[in-house]
Amino acid sequence: MRAVVIHAAKDLRVESRPTGEPGPGEVTVRLKRGGICGSDLHYYNHGGFGAVRLREPMILGHEVAGEVVAVGAEVTALAPGDRVAVSPSRPDWDDVYAREGMPNQSLGMRFYGSAMPFPHVQGAFREVLIAEAAQCAKVPKGVSDAAAAMAEPLAVCLHAVTRAGSLLGKRVLVTGCGPIGVLTILAARRAGAEVIVATDIAAGCLAHAERAGADQVIDVSGGTAALDRFATDKGWFHVAFEASGAAPALVEAIRVVRPRGVIVQLGLGGEMALPMNVLVAKELELRGTFRFHDEFFWAVELMGKGLIDVEPLVSDVFPMSDAVAAFERASDRSRAMKVQLAF
Amino acid sequence: MRAVVIHAAKDLRVESRPTGEPGPGEVTVRLKRGGICGSDLHYYNHGGFGAVRLREPMILGHEVAGEVVAVGAEVTALAPGDRVAVSPSRPDWDDVYAREGMPNQSLGMRFYGSAMPFPHVQGAFREVLIAEAAQCAKVPKGVSDAAAAMAEPLAVCLHAVTRAGSLLGKRVLVTGCGPIGVLTILAARRAGAEVIVATDIAAGCLAHAERAGADQVIDVSGGTAALDRFATDKGWFHVAFEASGAAPALVEAIRVVRPRGVIVQLGLGGEMALPMNVLVAKELELRGTFRFHDEFFWAVELMGKGLIDVEPLVSDVFPMSDAVAAFERASDRSRAMKVQLAF
Amino acid sequence: MRAVVIHAAKDLRVESRPTGEPGPGEVTVRLKRGGICGSDLHYYNHGGFGAVRLREPMILGHEVAGEVVAVGAEVTALAPGDRVAVSPSRPDWDDVYAREGMPNQSLGMRFYGSAMPFPHVQGAFREVLIAEAAQCAKVPKGVSDAAAAMAEPLAVCLHAVTRAGSLLGKRVLVTGCGPIGVLTILAARRAGAEVIVATDIAAGCLAHAERAGADQVIDVSGGTAALDRFATDKGWFHVAFEASGAAPALVEAIRVVRPRGVIVQLGLGGEMALPMNVLVAKELELRGTFRFHDEFFWAVELMGKGLIDVEPLVSDVFPMSDAVAAFERASDRSRAMKVQLAF
Amino acid sequence: MRAVVIHAAKDLRVESRPTGEPGPGEVTVRLKRGGICGSDLHYYNHGGFGAVRLREPMILGHEVAGEVVAVGAEVTALAPGDRVAVSPSRPDWDDVYAREGMPNQSLGMRFYGSAMPFPHVQGAFREVLIAEAAQCAKVPKGVSDAAAAMAEPLAVCLHAVTRAGSLLGKRVLVTGCGPIGVLTILAARRAGAEVIVATDIAAGCLAHAERAGADQVIDVSGGTAALDRFATDKGWFHVAFEASGAAPALVEAIRVVRPRGVIVQLGLGGEMALPMNVLVAKELELRGTFRFHDEFFWAVELMGKGLIDVEPLVSDVFPMSDAVAAFERASDRSRAMKVQLAF
Repeated sequence: MRAVVIHAAKDLRVESRPTGEPGPGEVTVRLKRGGICGSDLHYYNHGGFGAVRLREPMILGHEVAGEVVAVGAEVTALAPGDRVAVSPSRPDWDDVYAREGMPNQSLGMRFYGSAMPFPHVQGAFREVLIAEAAQCAKVPKGVSDAAAAMAEPLAVCLHAVTRAGSLLGKRVLVTGCGPIGVLTILAARRAGAEVIVATDIAAGCLAHAERAGADQVIDVSGGTAALDRFATDKGWFHVAFEASGAAPALVEAIRVVRPRGVIVQLGLGGEMALPMNVLVAKELELRGTFRFHDEFFWAVELMGKGLIDVEPLVSDVFPMSDAVAAFERASDRSRAMKVQLAF
Repeated sequence: MRAVVIHAAKDLRVESRPTGEPGPGEVTVRLKRGGICGSDLHYYNHGGFGAVRLREPMILGHEVAGEVVAVGAEVTALAPGDRVAVSPSRPDWDDVYAREGMPNQSLGMRFYGSAMPFPHVQGAFREVLIAEAAQCAKVPKGVSDAAAAMAEPLAVCLHAVTRAGSLLGKRVLVTGCGPIGVLTILAARRAGAEVIVATDIAAGCLAHAERAGADQVIDVSGGTAALDRFATDKGWFHVAFEASGAAPALVEAIRVVRPRGVIVQLGLGGEMALPMNVLVAKELELRGTFRFHDEFFWAVELMGKGLIDVEPLVSDVFPMSDAVAAFERASDRSRAMKVQLAF
Repeated sequence: MRAVVIHAAKDLRVESRPTGEPGPGEVTVRLKRGGICGSDLHYYNHGGFGAVRLREPMILGHEVAGEVVAVGAEVTALAPGDRVAVSPSRPDWDDVYAREGMPNQSLGMRFYGSAMPFPHVQGAFREVLIAEAAQCAKVPKGVSDAAAAMAEPLAVCLHAVTRAGSLLGKRVLVTGCGPIGVLTILAARRAGAEVIVATDIAAGCLAHAERAGADQVIDVSGGTAALDRFATDKGWFHVAFEASGAAPALVEAIRVVRPRGVIVQLGLGGEMALPMNVLVAKELELRGTFRFHDEFFWAVELMGKGLIDVEPLVSDVFPMSDAVAAFERASDRSRAMKVQLAF
Repeated sequence: MRAVVIHAAKDLRVESRPTGEPGPGEVTVRLKRGGICGSDLHYYNHGGFGAVRLREPMILGHEVAGEVVAVGAEVTALAPGDRVAVSPSRPDWDDVYAREGMPNQSLGMRFYGSAMPFPHVQGAFREVLIAEAAQCAKVPKGVSDAAAAMAEPLAVCLHAVTRAGSLLGKRVLVTGCGPIGVLTILAARRAGAEVIVATDIAAGCLAHAERAGADQVIDVSGGTAALDRFATDKGWFHVAFEASGAAPALVEAIRVVRPRGVIVQLGLGGEMALPMNVLVAKELELRGTFRFHDEFFWAVELMGKGLIDVEPLVSDVFPMSDAVAAFERASDRSRAMKVQLAF
C-alpha cells in the first residue's frame, strides 16, 4: 500500500507501507478521496506550525472517504461495499474532558496526521486505512466521494456555528473565505442566518463565497472602508466567524459586531493584538472553536439530504502520485479552493 | 371602508367603519390579504376562549398585508406604493418586560383583534388600516401578498424555534400539523434540523407536513405505536415542538424526547395532565412560547431571499364579502390549511 | 456485618451480610452515619413507587459517610483513617449519555438502594461498605459525620440550583420544605439569591426553612391567598424550585413566576394537571432535575469551607438496631426533618 | 453648593455650583459619601483615557450615597429622610439596545462624570445632587453611608459575575485585586464559587483579597511560576475574572483556564497581544463586561441582608475640601484600597 509521507518541509514522498488487518471493531477502507487541509500545508511548507514540529516521517491527511473492503470481528453496522467517510477524531473516552461532553478536548486525542504527540499520529492519505467502525459514517447515495471527503472540514464549521448559538434571523460576518470560511457560510445559511457578509483579500475566494450564498462579499485587500457603515451605532452584526487567522480581520470583527455579539474564532494564527477596551465596552464574546465531534456525522447526513452542497468547493483533483503538485496547487490561494487527492 | 366584525359566536358581519387619517409616524395601508388564525376561529365558533370572552363587537384578524396609500408626518422609511406586511404586535415600550427585552410580554400590549383588554383591541380584517410605520415590514419583490400575510404566523414559529436554541444537526419532532405546525417544520429545517418527524391525526395536514420537508410523517389517529421505536433508551429526539394543543401529543413528546431535551409548547389548549415523574427523571425542559417580536421582520426577509417558502400553505382564498364561508372552511381541518380573505 | 434490609412494605430487618474485600481501585469503608431519604421511605411504606416495586430483599440507603479501614490495589488518593462521604452514583461511563456529559442519565447507572434494575442494586445502610475510591470524597476536618452523610441530598439540590442557571440577585420561591426543600434554600442562598420565599403546609418544616435563611415562609395549609400579591403583573419570582411533588404547589409556582421565568421540578409525584395555557402565555420554562454527579464533591467542599451548613437539618439519630423506629419517625413529617442511622 | 471639579490633569478644584430644584419624578439628595473610582483617577492624573479627553471642566464622581432632603412632583416611593444610594446610570430607554434588555449599552446613556459625550455629563461629587427617583435605591438600616457608596462598584462586579453564568461549585481565578477585583471576589463567593484564587503584584491588595475570602492569594510581582500547577492538563479554573487591565494577567488567565472555560474581562486597558491559538484550541470564551443596570439595586439589597460585606474595603476617608489629597492617596495603590470623600 502506498501513502503520502512528509519527511520535512518540502520533502513529501509517496512511499510503501504495510496494509494490516482489521482487529475487533475495525474495518478496512479502500480510500477514494482525500482533501488537503491548511495544517497539511503547514507541515508541507514549514515542517510544522508554532511549537509543533515534525520529528519523524508522518503520513499526512485527515479528510478522507472511501469504501469498506473488509470488516473485523464484532462489526455489525458496516459491511464490505459500504461507502464511508472516516472521522480523524479518536478521543480517549476515559478522559476528564470527554466525560464532560468535550471529546474534542480529550488529552489523549489521537487525530490523524498530527505531530503534536510523539510518536506522531500517522495520517490518512493512503490507499488503505484501517479504522474503527465507530469512526465511519455511511455515505448516502447521491453524495459523491469528493463531497464525502469534505465531511471533516464541514464538521469543523458545523461545530463553529453551533458554538455561536442559534443563528436564526441573525446578521453574520465571515472573515476569510478559504475552504473553512466558505463552508462556514454554507453552515450559517443552513442554520438560518438572515444576512451573511463575507470578506477576503482574494477575488477567487470571494467568488466562492458568493456562490455559497453570501449576500454581500467585500474585498478588503485595499482597506476596510466598505465596512464602515456596519460600525455605526456600535456595530451591526450579531455574530462574526473569523476564519482567516489574520489579526486585522479579528480587529475588524470587533469593530463591526454589535454589543453582546459573538465572535467565533476558527483561524489559529498565533499572537494577535486586540483592542480589549472595545471588546469590554461592547461586552463582546470571543469564543474559540476547535475541531468537532458528533458534527462529523451530522455533516454526512445534511449532505445526504441535499441540505448543504459542498461539491462546488472542490477546485482540483490530483492523482496520489502527483501529491507534490497537489500540495503546490493547494498552497496557491489565488488558484485553489479545496484540492483533493484521488487514491 | 368595510370590516369583518364578530358580534358573538357564529355572528360574523361585514360592516362599515370610518377610514381615518394617518397621524405622525403612521401610514394608511390598503389591505390585500388577511389570514384566518386559530384565535379568530375561537371567537367565531365559541365567542372567545378560556376566560377571554367577547364583550362588544370586534373587528377580527391580525395576519395582514397590503399597500401603503398615504403616510403621516415624520414617516421617512415608507412611501405610497410600498407593499407591506403589518405586524399586529404593539407593545408598551415603557413596560417592565419590554425593557428587559421581552416586548411580547408587555403588560400594555395592544395586539390586533384581541378581546383580552376591554375595550377590545380592534383587528385588521378591513379594507383600510392605519398603522404605525414601525409595525410595517416592506415586502420584497417576489413575495406575494398571500405570502406576506403569512409573516405573522411564520414569526410565531420563528420565535418558537429560537426558544429551542440552536437546532443545527438536531432531531426534531413536531406534533400537530395545522398551519403553525407546518410553519414550524419550515422554520426548523431552515434552522438546520437534521431530522424532522411530524405527527397529526388528519391525512391532509400530514400531506402538507411532508411537502414542507418533514422526513417522516406519522398518522397517530389510530395510536402512537409507530413512535415506540423513538422511546427506547429514554428517547431519541433532541427537541419537540408541540403545536396541537392536545394533551396526548404533549404526553407523547415527553415519552420520546431524550434526557435534557427541550419541548417547546406552542399550542395553548388549557389544562393538561402530564407525567411529571418522567419529565423530572429525564430532566426535560418544557418551554412555553408566545407570539413574537423582531421575528416578524426576519420572517419577511427570509421569505424575500427565498429561504422559506410559505406559499403552498395557502389552501383557500375567499373575497371579504364571503367572510362567513371563509370562516366555515377554515374551521374544517380536513379540507383547509391556511384560509385567507382577499380585501 | 449487619445491614438494613427491606423485604416488603413495613417489613424492614437488620440482617447479616458478608463483608468482602476491596478489589483494585476499591476501598473498605466503616460507615458511621446514614440518612433516610424519601425513596427509602417509599420502599418502607409502600414497597416501591410508581412502576418500581421490590422483587427481592434489598439493602436500603444511599446517604452515607464513614471511615476508610482498608484500601485495595492501585488506590493512592485514600488511606486508612480517611473520613469519606460515599457517592451512591455509579454511572456506566461508556454510555451514550455519560459521554455527552450527563452521567446521571446513564442507562447503566447503578445507584445504591434502587429496585429499578433487577437484580436490585443493594444499598449502603450497612456497617461496612466496599466502594470505588472514585466514589469517595474526603471529608475535611470540621465537617461532622452527620453533615458528611448529607452530601448526597445536598448534591441533589446543588444540581437543581445549577439547572436554574445563575441565581445571583434573583427572587426565588421554594415550594415544599422537607429536607430537599430546605437544602435547596441553603443552596440557592449560597448561589446568591436575593429573596427566598418558602411555602409548606407543616409548621415544623417552615421553621426549618426560616432557620436555613428563607426571607419569608408561608403556610399554605389554609390556602394560597398569601401568595396573591406575587401574582400581579404576571408574576414576581424569577425562579421557583418545586420540592413537594404536590401538583397544587406546581400550579401555584406557575401562577407566581414571571414571564420567561424558570421552574425547576425536584419532587417526583406522578401525574399532574397543569394550566398549560399559562405556561405558554408567560413563556415559562419547566425543567426537571434528577440526582447529580460532580455536585457530590462540591457539596463536601462547600461544607468544608463553612459555606453551607447542613447540620441543623439533622433532627433525629437512631442506632442501626432501631432502624424500624427510625423509619417510622422519618415518615412523620410533623416531627422529623432528616433522620439518620448511626452504624 | 460645592462640587469637585476637574479642569485638566492634576488640576482639581472645589468650586461652587447652583443647587437647583427637583422636577417631576426627581429628588434632591444631600450627599454623604463618594468613592473615587479608577476612571476618576484617569481624569485626575491624565486628563482622560484613550480617546476620551476633558474638553471642559467637569464634576467628577459616580459612586455616591446620601439622604433625600426634598422630593419633586409625582415622587411616591421616596420621602425626605430616606437614605439612598444613587445609580449613575441613566440610559435612553427608547434606544435600540435598551429595548433589547441592554440598557447599559444605550447609545444615549448619560453616566455621571463622563467626558465621552460633549458637553460632558457632570458628575456626582457635590454636596447636593438632583436625581431621578428611579435612580435611587433606598438604603436599609445597618448599611452605612460608606457601604452604600460602594453600591456602584459592587454593581459592576455583580454584572461581571452574572456575565459568567452560574458559578456554583466553580473554581475561579481573579487577576488584579484593586477594589474591582476584591469586590469580584466577594460577588463570586456569594454566587457559590468553590475555590477562589487571586493574583496581584501588591501585597496590600492581596491582603484585602484574602480578607474578602480568597482561598489562596498569589503575588505575581516576581513571576507566575506559582500558577504553573494550574496549567497542567490544559488548565484548572472554570472561570477567570481579569480585573487588572494588564495584558500579562489576561495572558496568564488564558494559560490556566480549562477548555470551554470563561474569562470575563473587567479591566479596560487598551490593546493587548493575546495567544489566540491557545484561546482557539481550548475553545475559551472571552467576554467583556461593562457597567451594570439592575445590579445596582441587587447590590443594595444584598448588603442590606448582610450577604455581602464591602465595608472593609474602605481604606481612607477625606473631607471634600481635601479632595486633592484624597485623589493623591487613591492613586497610590500601595497604600489605598477604596478612598472616599465625605461631603
